[in-house]
Amino acid sequence: MKRKSEIRTDIAWATPSKISIHGLDLCEEIIGKVDLGRMTFLQVFRRLPDQREARMFDAMMVVLVEHGITPSSLATRMTLCGAPEAVQAAIAAGLLGLGSVFAGSLDNAARMLQSAIPLGGGPEGDMREIAERLVDDYRTRKEPIPGIGHPFHKPIDPRAPALFAVAEETEYSGHYVTLINEVSAVATAQLGRPLPVNVTGAMGAIASEFGLAWNTCRGLAVAARAIGLVGHVLEEFRNPMAEEIYFRIEDEATRHARPE
Amino acid sequence: MKRKSEIRTDIAWATPSKISIHGLDLCEEIIGKVDLGRMTFLQVFRRLPDQREARMFDAMMVVLVEHGITPSSLATRMTLCGAPEAVQAAIAAGLLGLGSVFAGSLDNAARMLQSAIPLGGGPEGDMREIAERLVDDYRTRKEPIPGIGHPFHKPIDPRAPALFAVAEETEYSGHYVTLINEVSAVATAQLGRPLPVNVTGAMGAIASEFGLAWNTCRGLAVAARAIGLVGHVLEEFRNPMAEEIYFRIEDEATRHARPE
Amino acid sequence: MKRKSEIRTDIAWATPSKISIHGLDLCEEIIGKVDLGRMTFLQVFRRLPDQREARMFDAMMVVLVEHGITPSSLATRMTLCGAPEAVQAAIAAGLLGLGSVFAGSLDNAARMLQSAIPLGGGPEGDMREIAERLVDDYRTRKEPIPGIGHPFHKPIDPRAPALFAVAEETEYSGHYVTLINEVSAVATAQLGRPLPVNVTGAMGAIASEFGLAWNTCRGLAVAARAIGLVGHVLEEFRNPMAEEIYFRIEDEATRHARPE
Amino acid sequence: MKRKSEIRTDIAWATPSKISIHGLDLCEEIIGKVDLGRMTFLQVFRRLPDQREARMFDAMMVVLVEHGITPSSLATRMTLCGAPEAVQAAIAAGLLGLGSVFAGSLDNAARMLQSAIPLGGGPEGDMREIAERLVDDYRTRKEPIPGIGHPFHKPIDPRAPALFAVAEETEYSGHYVTLINEVSAVATAQLGRPLPVNVTGAMGAIASEFGLAWNTCRGLAVAARAIGLVGHVLEEFRNPMAEEIYFRIEDEATRHARPE
Repeated sequence: MKRKSEIRTDIAWATPSKISIHGLDLCEEIIGKVDLGRMTFLQVFRRLPDQREARMFDAMMVVLVEHGITPSSLATRMTLCGAPEAVQAAIAAGLLGLGSVFAGSLDNAARMLQSAIPLGGGPEGDMREIAERLVDDYRTRKEPIPGIGHPFHKPIDPRAPALFAVAEETEYSGHYVTLINEVSAVATAQLGRPLPVNVTGAMGAIASEFGLAWNTCRGLAVAARAIGLVGHVLEEFRNPMAEEIYFRIEDEATRHARPE
Repeated sequence: MKRKSEIRTDIAWATPSKISIHGLDLCEEIIGKVDLGRMTFLQVFRRLPDQREARMFDAMMVVLVEHGITPSSLATRMTLCGAPEAVQAAIAAGLLGLGSVFAGSLDNAARMLQSAIPLGGGPEGDMREIAERLVDDYRTRKEPIPGIGHPFHKPIDPRAPALFAVAEETEYSGHYVTLINEVSAVATAQLGRPLPVNVTGAMGAIASEFGLAWNTCRGLAVAARAIGLVGHVLEEFRNPMAEEIYFRIEDEATRHARPE
Repeated sequence: MKRKSEIRTDIAWATPSKISIHGLDLCEEIIGKVDLGRMTFLQVFRRLPDQREARMFDAMMVVLVEHGITPSSLATRMTLCGAPEAVQAAIAAGLLGLGSVFAGSLDNAARMLQSAIPLGGGPEGDMREIAERLVDDYRTRKEPIPGIGHPFHKPIDPRAPALFAVAEETEYSGHYVTLINEVSAVATAQLGRPLPVNVTGAMGAIASEFGLAWNTCRGLAVAARAIGLVGHVLEEFRNPMAEEIYFRIEDEATRHARPE
Repeated sequence: MKRKSEIRTDIAWATPSKISIHGLDLCEEIIGKVDLGRMTFLQVFRRLPDQREARMFDAMMVVLVEHGITPSSLATRMTLCGAPEAVQAAIAAGLLGLGSVFAGSLDNAARMLQSAIPLGGGPEGDMREIAERLVDDYRTRKEPIPGIGHPFHKPIDPRAPALFAVAEETEYSGHYVTLINEVSAVATAQLGRPLPVNVTGAMGAIASEFGLAWNTCRGLAVAARAIGLVGHVLEEFRNPMAEEIYFRIEDEATRHARPE
């Protein structure tokens, strides 16, 4: 089982007097000069953004931060209830459910778009036809078309137009934004009910405009949500709900079996 | 086991057409208007920061994002090696080690400072005397004094002066910053070797200036590090090291026992 | 940051034709010959148990496996709801809350007993006096005395006598079992209300009889609970509750704020 | 977002004097009477096993417990290095990598077998023909055939015959065991190199004989590995390697960039 290949990182290095992150001096060029959104951009793209890029990137990230009471924030609160001394474990527990159901919808939207227009390439042929092909494919496979429609935010998911407005201003409204809107139009026509672009459709399109491979979108969602979960940790410390939920659910779930 | 107490969150709520986060309309007042650092501030303090607050907060957060190859980033890379489809699990694994040893040093520095000057209160008595009392306490208990000295960044940890410079400019250089510097001066004199304020001392002082309770500092460290770990996930996908480390370590660790 | 110390494991090694675990040949000496309880004992004690040891160890482990609907099993179910494809993440999420509140009570009971009678040593002086000293210590520090009393299992926690019965039969009823019973008697007398030994008191005593250091008890609790959480994963797949809990709690928790 | 469906568990309930797990009285019928392997069987199958079932189940479980130094046990050790007070987090970190690469191979073997012979059904047609169809399918899709061949355990994986021997004795050697052996024979003939059944092939076949759906196999692997990771936690406390690995890797990985 022996072999020997290179072990190398290009992210960061340190000497006693200097710390370098993606080629920037942490103390001279980052602290006090780079804000958190730009720092996140730096971690992802290995260079700082310009003003336009930072504005679009921040808009995309802030949408992902906070979603209220969700299975994810409930897992964080449940974990805090048993291990209040291990805040890192509570936040990690909340992140663990960002899988195929929640975070996955963002991956899926970006994947669909990038399957039709490869990153770095341009669309081949008419956009409406590409959209029709995508919709046909999903319908043939009887899979839901990602990025359109929303069970709760009806008739439209207000986050999508808000993101698209920033994309317009920052010139991020390119092929992928066009395509997700075409997919929405085609699906609405074919299925006979309104299926506007939802937040994951808008995010998937904008992430694609940024050149982010679909399978890295989840990382950004996870990082943003870690920020959101800090808020739930703080609130659970101030005004807890986990124990009450546990008592109620335990009582209800076992009532059918317990002798009185 | 029955009881019934209120279950309530004040973080966020949604209707089909509106999402409210800490009283702000996500689509109207946050997307495109609030950057990621301010959004993080909002999650923690339940209000947006002004320019001065945002600048100091960003400086504190960016320091926590990236620390290169650490046990934490190695845990993320090891996890990705077995579950590349579950990026959320890889990031969570890296966060789980932010416990008493690493993140804990920040908690400890803030706790020491807040034990001497309660949050919201002012120092009672002379700062030098308070610092002497703290140093005596730790030496009596034979515990290391948090926030001063560094095994690698010698003679000084360059992050501390960089943070203090921003604190000076943004008027965050208050009682706690004074106190950690006094602790450093007293310890240096008493122990006869240079023990300058390190990054966790500077961070603990500034977090205290922000009014953050010591046991919530870890939450911020965890959120910032989640951003950093996204960079390690991306690099591990591009240029993996986990499998090579595993092969080498397995070989070396079992060599003494394996028959040839 | 250079240095070079030995990296070595004594747990397991493999050649193409043989796998050795704690000195036993997996294929020749373990598979089909060693049951899961003995295998667990082997991992912990680095040798196989005899019949008597296996029986007591199994009794201790099975108590830890399943505790019904708890914050821990709810965290597992919440995580599965978002990431049904990542069962490992759901189980991990449930384990993360086994901290100071739940698993910690077992650690605390064992720690108290081992502080009075060091592992490998015998009691110094009269057991009743040792118990009185322990009770006094905890009352002076205003800390709850671990291992006695139970908020729900009243008047007695039925698991404690069941474990003690096995300890009696298997000759595990030694100093530590005597001591926890004395602690219960002293506390009951001093505090004027029944404070019988509870499950964590019995477990802490028996773990101490096994020579397990108090800070390793949590590991056993975590392993046993991982087994229990598999049952919750299977039930959540068959008959889910996580989404319903989420909908109800989200609705209730935001009702005060949402416009109708 | 309102609705109201039943929340119910059938795993366990408790009254002050009694705890019931899958219909058994914990104190009367489990403690001291049921060993850990049978308790695990109970959690999975909701009934106790007979002797024959227990023996096969134990054999399957013990194989999964310990795999030496792996990315999984390294993630546990790395996490412990930063959070030695949170053993639950260290074990959880090790479990998180049991995804598509490691635990997934077991799922895949079981899935392949269950796709050919549905659980509860019998094989339709000749076994050799079924195996040929499976091998063709995987080769057409250019996917590796799960459950056969091993990069390290050559010429055969000794765990497979060990498991099959127990299956023979306990009468678990049914359709699925036959099928995985046929798959091995067909693949060996078609691909012109020895591709004997490996451990995941044997486990996947036996799990299928137990009637376990392929997507629940991972749960068993996770539970068994949690036991194994306790051993790594204990060894890391006794004789640590994580910090040394971190120092070496950090040094090597950044050497190309650091100024001397």
